[in-house]
Amino acid sequence: MTTLLPAWLNQRAQATPDRLALVAGPDRFTFRELAARVEQTARRLGAFGVRKDDRVALLMRNGACFVELIHAVSRLGAVLVPLNTRLAPAEIAWQLADVQATHLIYDPPDAETARAAARDFPGLRLATSADYPTGGETALAQLPEADCPLCDDVDPGAAHSIIYTSGTTGKPKGAVLTFGNHWWSAMASALNLGVHAEDRWLACLPLFHVGGLAIVLRGVIYGNAIIVHEAFDPVAVNRAIDEDGATMVSVVSAMLRRMIEARAGRPYPSSLRCVLLGGGPAPRPLLESCAELGVPVMQTYGLTETASQFATLSPEDASRKIGSAGKPLFPNRLRIETDHGAASPGEVGEIVVHGPTVTSGYMGSGSVAAPVQDGWFHTGDLGYVDEEGYLYVVARRDDLIISGGENIYPAEVEAVLLSHPHVEEAAVTGIPDARWGQVPVAAVKLRPDSTLTADELRAFCTARLGRYKVPAAFRFVDSLPRNAAGKLLRAALSEGWPLDGAR
Amino acid sequence: MTTLLPAWLNQRAQATPDRLALVAGPDRFTFRELAARVEQTARRLGAFGVRKDDRVALLMRNGACFVELIHAVSRLGAVLVPLNTRLAPAEIAWQLADVQATHLIYDPPDAETARAAARDFPGLRLATSADYPTGGETALAQLPEADCPLCDDVDPGAAHSIIYTSGTTGKPKGAVLTFGNHWWSAMASALNLGVHAEDRWLACLPLFHVGGLAIVLRGVIYGNAIIVHEAFDPVAVNRAIDEDGATMVSVVSAMLRRMIEARAGRPYPSSLRCVLLGGGPAPRPLLESCAELGVPVMQTYGLTETASQFATLSPEDASRKIGSAGKPLFPNRLRIETDHGAASPGEVGEIVVHGPTVTSGYMGSGSVAAPVQDGWFHTGDLGYVDEEGYLYVVARRDDLIISGGENIYPAEVEAVLLSHPHVEEAAVTGIPDARWGQVPVAAVKLRPDSTLTADELRAFCTARLGRYKVPAAFRFVDSLPRNAAGKLLRAALSEGWPLDGAR
Repeated sequence: MTTLLPAWLNQRAQATPDRLALVAGPDRFTFRELAARVEQTARRLGAFGVRKDDRVALLMRNGACFVELIHAVSRLGAVLVPLNTRLAPAEIAWQLADVQATHLIYDPPDAETARAAARDFPGLRLATSADYPTGGETALAQLPEADCPLCDDVDPGAAHSIIYTSGTTGKPKGAVLTFGNHWWSAMASALNLGVHAEDRWLACLPLFHVGGLAIVLRGVIYGNAIIVHEAFDPVAVNRAIDEDGATMVSVVSAMLRRMIEARAGRPYPSSLRCVLLGGGPAPRPLLESCAELGVPVMQTYGLTETASQFATLSPEDASRKIGSAGKPLFPNRLRIETDHGAASPGEVGEIVVHGPTVTSGYMGSGSVAAPVQDGWFHTGDLGYVDEEGYLYVVARRDDLIISGGENIYPAEVEAVLLSHPHVEEAAVTGIPDARWGQVPVAAVKLRPDSTLTADELRAFCTARLGRYKVPAAFRFVDSLPRNAAGKLLRAALSEGWPLDGAR
Repeated sequence: MTTLLPAWLNQRAQATPDRLALVAGPDRFTFRELAARVEQTARRLGAFGVRKDDRVALLMRNGACFVELIHAVSRLGAVLVPLNTRLAPAEIAWQLADVQATHLIYDPPDAETARAAARDFPGLRLATSADYPTGGETALAQLPEADCPLCDDVDPGAAHSIIYTSGTTGKPKGAVLTFGNHWWSAMASALNLGVHAEDRWLACLPLFHVGGLAIVLRGVIYGNAIIVHEAFDPVAVNRAIDEDGATMVSVVSAMLRRMIEARAGRPYPSSLRCVLLGGGPAPRPLLESCAELGVPVMQTYGLTETASQFATLSPEDASRKIGSAGKPLFPNRLRIETDHGAASPGEVGEIVVHGPTVTSGYMGSGSVAAPVQDGWFHTGDLGYVDEEGYLYVVARRDDLIISGGENIYPAEVEAVLLSHPHVEEAAVTGIPDARWGQVPVAAVKLRPDSTLTADELRAFCTARLGRYKVPAAFRFVDSLPRNAAGKLLRAALSEGWPLDGAR
């Protein structure tokens, strides 16, 4: 399919100009208004020197301005490079170099990081999103509107964005996502979750991650309003569901837990029709609480490299297949590969995926070729498929612990820990061990006022897990390390354990 | 986008095996059951000699068997050629030759037509859909199931079907529609009308027309049940809406009128969320009756060459823009061309369309090249776009009457006739005239017991239309000629008028 499509936001503003498009803080725009603002922003970017195929990096917080810039970059035929605001300047500098960024636009709170990261790139142009900048910065809002060419077409094969994956080991990789990848992702989601005219999808995940960006693009393609929160606040999310008509919310497990806790037992309205749960499996007690409060949780398995959701549990299976990420979305296929070939049902292996949302590859001088063979992408993640074809993700490959030749999936051990009523959060990782190669250890955040001891927790695990899976040591912590998307960073937990050959 | 997609019905049977897929007479099948039956049928077609790329013509009535064959032909990688059962044997013979059909499958009522049409094609293989055939016919149901290769993939660029357009002049043309054309058509409709899990689309149009076929394909892509009626029966359609959960119905204006009449003033349930009205504009009094009864009529403009709907009025505009076919669906664009270039808003010209549902071309030895230039297809239809971008179709180009240099659009004159309370149906066409080139004449079906005269009707028109648009003659008829899709055949009305230079 090489037919050009009309530019998405323009076409949407033509089709349904007066529908609400965006709610972000005090801002409420219809599609007509959003398209007009985006054209203005695009012309300012033109005056800033942005040209077709330029890589425009954004270091921004969630808000209307971020949404407008996402669309404005495409309007110029440039490529969007959303950056993680929680990275250190050196990490950002590495990504800017790798992607050969031409422009960097930052929010005021990130000005120092932006300037530090840009120090060694004399060619990189910087601008702030601030209306009234201080200290001689270039402010996008103060630029004139250039009479530059704008794109009325979208080529499904052209790069829309380059997103660096939050790899826990090694250098991040810039996955190139085409307009076609994003379009198919929106279609695939639509064919599973449906499209209702009154839907409003709430983005409380950062828009610089693929899961947040996908909400912005789906909104325009579907003609649905999106609600953008600057940061995750469980009370605000609950309020958006009760009062602002949010019908769909994308979260990770830790967010969902906080939403439920803040809810204090009050049921959710029936207008909430999907809580899309990414970033790894949720503990069963949490899912049971959700069922009691009428929260339609649909677990999903997605990657930056597949433009967000790849497999998602469908509404009718949500209660019957708890813990599963469902089946591949309509245009997608997956298989599980082991060392000896295709896995049998129930057998764990690498998740290998195929479909029109799969990235064409990584980019940048520091990046490697994408592991795509004949259209099949090797995710590196581990999982199995049951007799009925439902996917269960057991571990990111990097998280797998091999102890005395046995595979230990951290998620399995964490699920047992989380089933203890005193445990609020838990993370399991492997540390080097002279005798076993690796042994599992656990960082645990207890509920307030709990006096649970490591010995009690060990006994709890021993009653429920094979001996080799029982953590060799426990550490009680106040919080667990997570990335900006809320995903647990297990690798960050592997330092400082007083163990070596302790078992 | 050249990524292969999973075969649609198979993928749907994987994704939601237990959802209802098809209701047709006494038959009710889930997607799992439908996929199993289709595989069986495909293997029998294999035994019948059908191979990849063969053109398999179907001369069939609406029913489960037709639906199964539609999917089974694709499962073998063969190309579907649905034939109009109302054609004469000579017309069918012409299409079979033009498309180079290899196989013809017919329903028992069409056996004689099939045999007559096939008389001069010794290579063409015939089979009946009957379970227990008489007279030595090959019966599909009695063939063994061959161990032939079945397609698990769908290539969006491959031909899915070849459908002959019901042109009113000249030979029909076989429009080649790819899997991609049909897929995008389903997506385009979804982005306008939404996708709800509980939707059921009622097919009371023949499945051999693109509008009926599109319902079958959307059902599988969306995972929604379809309800197939053997023929249009207004009472049965109303009952399907009340009792069988039909939420979407595709009709033409004459069908809608009969539904409303059979309803006798009883409102429709709110579960009916779309009556998709194709085949030309509906008279305003009918649309007003629909509004009173809560019928959500959405006018659409579609062509065989665009795989059904191209533009459709969106739900929020249905009442505000009565008479319009709405705006192009999301992936589509249109423009209006006049002899002097692009038309201004309100100016009538040829409707020229662009999008991923547009046919790649016509096929067959007797066919002409498709009028596609740079992806833009010249429909030959006439219309205009208002200031807000809404399309109004005024005439099929073949229907245009040119009288004394003035354009007369039959639909405009018909709308006036239909606004008379005694007129039930009306059709206007042009006949040759020595002085004016052409003059309009009208065939009118009066309501029962009406004693309206031609003079009274002429006076009614004269009060409401420019003089040159007033029909030069009236003929009162019992019924109007329509094709199988219910479309008015104006050309069939042009014979036998006692006029020449009458004005």
